[in-house]
Amino acid sequence: MEESLIGNVLVAQSGGPTAVINASLAGIVAEALNHECIEEIYGALNGVEGILNEKLVDLAAESQQVIRGLKYTPASALGTCRFKLKTQEDYARVLEVFKAHNIRYFFYIGGNDSQDTANKISELAKSQGWQMRVIGVPKTIDNDLPMTDHCPGYGSVVKYLSASIRELALDHEAMGNHDIVSIVEVMGRNAGWIAAGTCVAKRRNQMEDAPHIILLPEVAFNADYFLAQVQECLKKNKFCLVVASEGIIDENGNYVAAGDAQDSFGHAQLGGVGEYLQNLVAKNLPGVKARSCKFGHAQRAAAHCASLVDANEAYLCGQKAVQAAVEGNDGMMVALVRGDTEKYSCETVLVPLGEVANGVKHFPENWIAEDKISISYQFNKYILPLIQGEVCVPFENGMPAYVRLAKEPVQQQLPPYQSA
Amino acid sequence: MEESLIGNVLVAQSGGPTAVINASLAGIVAEALNHECIEEIYGALNGVEGILNEKLVDLAAESQQVIRGLKYTPASALGTCRFKLKTQEDYARVLEVFKAHNIRYFFYIGGNDSQDTANKISELAKSQGWQMRVIGVPKTIDNDLPMTDHCPGYGSVVKYLSASIRELALDHEAMGNHDIVSIVEVMGRNAGWIAAGTCVAKRRNQMEDAPHIILLPEVAFNADYFLAQVQECLKKNKFCLVVASEGIIDENGNYVAAGDAQDSFGHAQLGGVGEYLQNLVAKNLPGVKARSCKFGHAQRAAAHCASLVDANEAYLCGQKAVQAAVEGNDGMMVALVRGDTEKYSCETVLVPLGEVANGVKHFPENWIAEDKISISYQFNKYILPLIQGEVCVPFENGMPAYVRLAKEPVQQQLPPYQSA
Repeated sequence: MEESLIGNVLVAQSGGPTAVINASLAGIVAEALNHECIEEIYGALNGVEGILNEKLVDLAAESQQVIRGLKYTPASALGTCRFKLKTQEDYARVLEVFKAHNIRYFFYIGGNDSQDTANKISELAKSQGWQMRVIGVPKTIDNDLPMTDHCPGYGSVVKYLSASIRELALDHEAMGNHDIVSIVEVMGRNAGWIAAGTCVAKRRNQMEDAPHIILLPEVAFNADYFLAQVQECLKKNKFCLVVASEGIIDENGNYVAAGDAQDSFGHAQLGGVGEYLQNLVAKNLPGVKARSCKFGHAQRAAAHCASLVDANEAYLCGQKAVQAAVEGNDGMMVALVRGDTEKYSCETVLVPLGEVANGVKHFPENWIAEDKISISYQFNKYILPLIQGEVCVPFENGMPAYVRLAKEPVQQQLPPYQSA
Repeated sequence: MEESLIGNVLVAQSGGPTAVINASLAGIVAEALNHECIEEIYGALNGVEGILNEKLVDLAAESQQVIRGLKYTPASALGTCRFKLKTQEDYARVLEVFKAHNIRYFFYIGGNDSQDTANKISELAKSQGWQMRVIGVPKTIDNDLPMTDHCPGYGSVVKYLSASIRELALDHEAMGNHDIVSIVEVMGRNAGWIAAGTCVAKRRNQMEDAPHIILLPEVAFNADYFLAQVQECLKKNKFCLVVASEGIIDENGNYVAAGDAQDSFGHAQLGGVGEYLQNLVAKNLPGVKARSCKFGHAQRAAAHCASLVDANEAYLCGQKAVQAAVEGNDGMMVALVRGDTEKYSCETVLVPLGEVANGVKHFPENWIAEDKISISYQFNKYILPLIQGEVCVPFENGMPAYVRLAKEPVQQQLPPYQSA
């Protein structure tokens, strides 16, 4: 497309880790090696924080074994951050670091915020005449990025949680003659994609299977309605398994569980939705055994039960980002597009970073069933392809053998950064 | 050994399910088919409750496929119970049901309570002149049965939790420059075997790896000491991962987290140790991010990450129980004995039910390190062999394909039971 731009690559990871974010990193490194115009392949430690502080590592120095191991190693191998570039000085510093290391290709693997940052960096470089290409790579278990059919990371969290819920349901079912209400708190503060996804724990055509009640942030929580639905479920089944998004809100738009705040008496408030609902049931339905589970951050790191389709797509997004940059694209994110054939297929396209940045894709209303606590059957067509196949994690001495980067430092060229 | 006793088999499962309790059931059914003296193979639904209510199913009518599937299907396929036989009438009824169905072999798969029940049934039959053989099969994730080196179910819960903790630690490590304290609440109300077992999440010779602090019910919890240890750990590492037994107690012997009680103001008390410690940290260490995870009953059902050694030994215990009974033994439990060679080996022996019943094997004091929050290296030799190998769970359409028994009912011979 454009003339060849010779220089170095910089990759960084940002936001909450996932089971497959390192697969994208592996895709970028493997693809970068294919292109003559790319000289060095650097990684920034802990996202933009590592760029500001010029903490770069040499990814080309990593062993083949380690790069291959990234395809099944969870969490962010380069480290991640929740840091936002704040001032003009911050942005200027980023560009200064890029220039000092002849960075001509920048790949930022992250969610909404990160795509916004990537967009601003791209625009700044352009306005300052620093020729470079910035491509965003999507990642988020939340699946809430606009402009892409789905996000790498989502299929794996759904697969792990649904497998765990299917197992948990067998356990409850075996307990026999007790009324058990079991709450599973799952991630998803703003959108219910994760909670909704766990509906695949049901066997095909067994709508009465767990999960019986799914609570989404998109639906205002009403305690009376909830308790009535729980009781109805207990009448039909011997137990009631509830999946609740951590971010469910009440009719006034307030979070149902407020986090680790304290009330005016200094009593600790309930930390999570799971324990909140467990207590609600215990208090209001005497004789019922209430239980709760919270997989916490383990759910987004559960590579031992990751989706192969998801991992492969994450890798593909990394590869395609490099190809797009080499071909001359800039200021774009790799997005996933689903083929419209009966058999699932998935391709990548480029979408402008500016159109992705800071948007949130909510769980579609027409996939929420009329009762507001279950998911319509149509959603199955969307979700099932994303959880297919199992990532094969090698085990060593009984434990998953994940890799760690050697992180050979790139020599610093600039004085330390003092942020304003 | 003795003359051949011709008649029917009855199997039942009791207590909390595990990832491998069904493997023992599979071992019993498969082995029972090998012996001419065994005519019918029945299962009781929900342990002794199913016997009292004469709810028996025909296990010989199950397909080969389903019996094989039990080797990787978690929870109790026959259903379980927490019910204890209370009165003489209860015991008399059990014997009546045995006679009505010509039960000459009874296998009870369970923990301490269940072995006690099996023992009483054996003694009753003897005193009433009903010729039969009762053999107990051990199961408990808690690993607290006396007279056996370890218990089927334990290796799998440790493998799953440790894999999850290794993943969680990678996630925390990636988060970079924040002080994170992460609590993982694990099962084990009376003994710390499960919590202690998670020390295998550390890489070999990396003592600074997570879990950094392990809290056992065997060690009195002291909040000041705990917070000091957490702070020390945060200085060395960027995060502190704590594994806490649900059953930790304070210096007065009271549970640190009291369950779902309410205080006098009607405020809900914290439901679990995890949220309790999370709040303790948040309140006392400002600036630290406190998190918690609770795998709940999912941890004992996590067959998707079960130990192959554990599953094989569970199956072996089932087989050996049948062989022992056919050879004329009665009133015994199958126990596991570890070979004293360098390479791990494991055999079964028979131990008297009366010596197992109602005992609790605590985590040995000499395996608790001097700091009381870590586990001595010697324990590794005990635990590592038990988590080796991975059970291969078939996946179908992206989800683990667990089996369910068809549960063909055995015709009832007696009037319904009215308990006293």
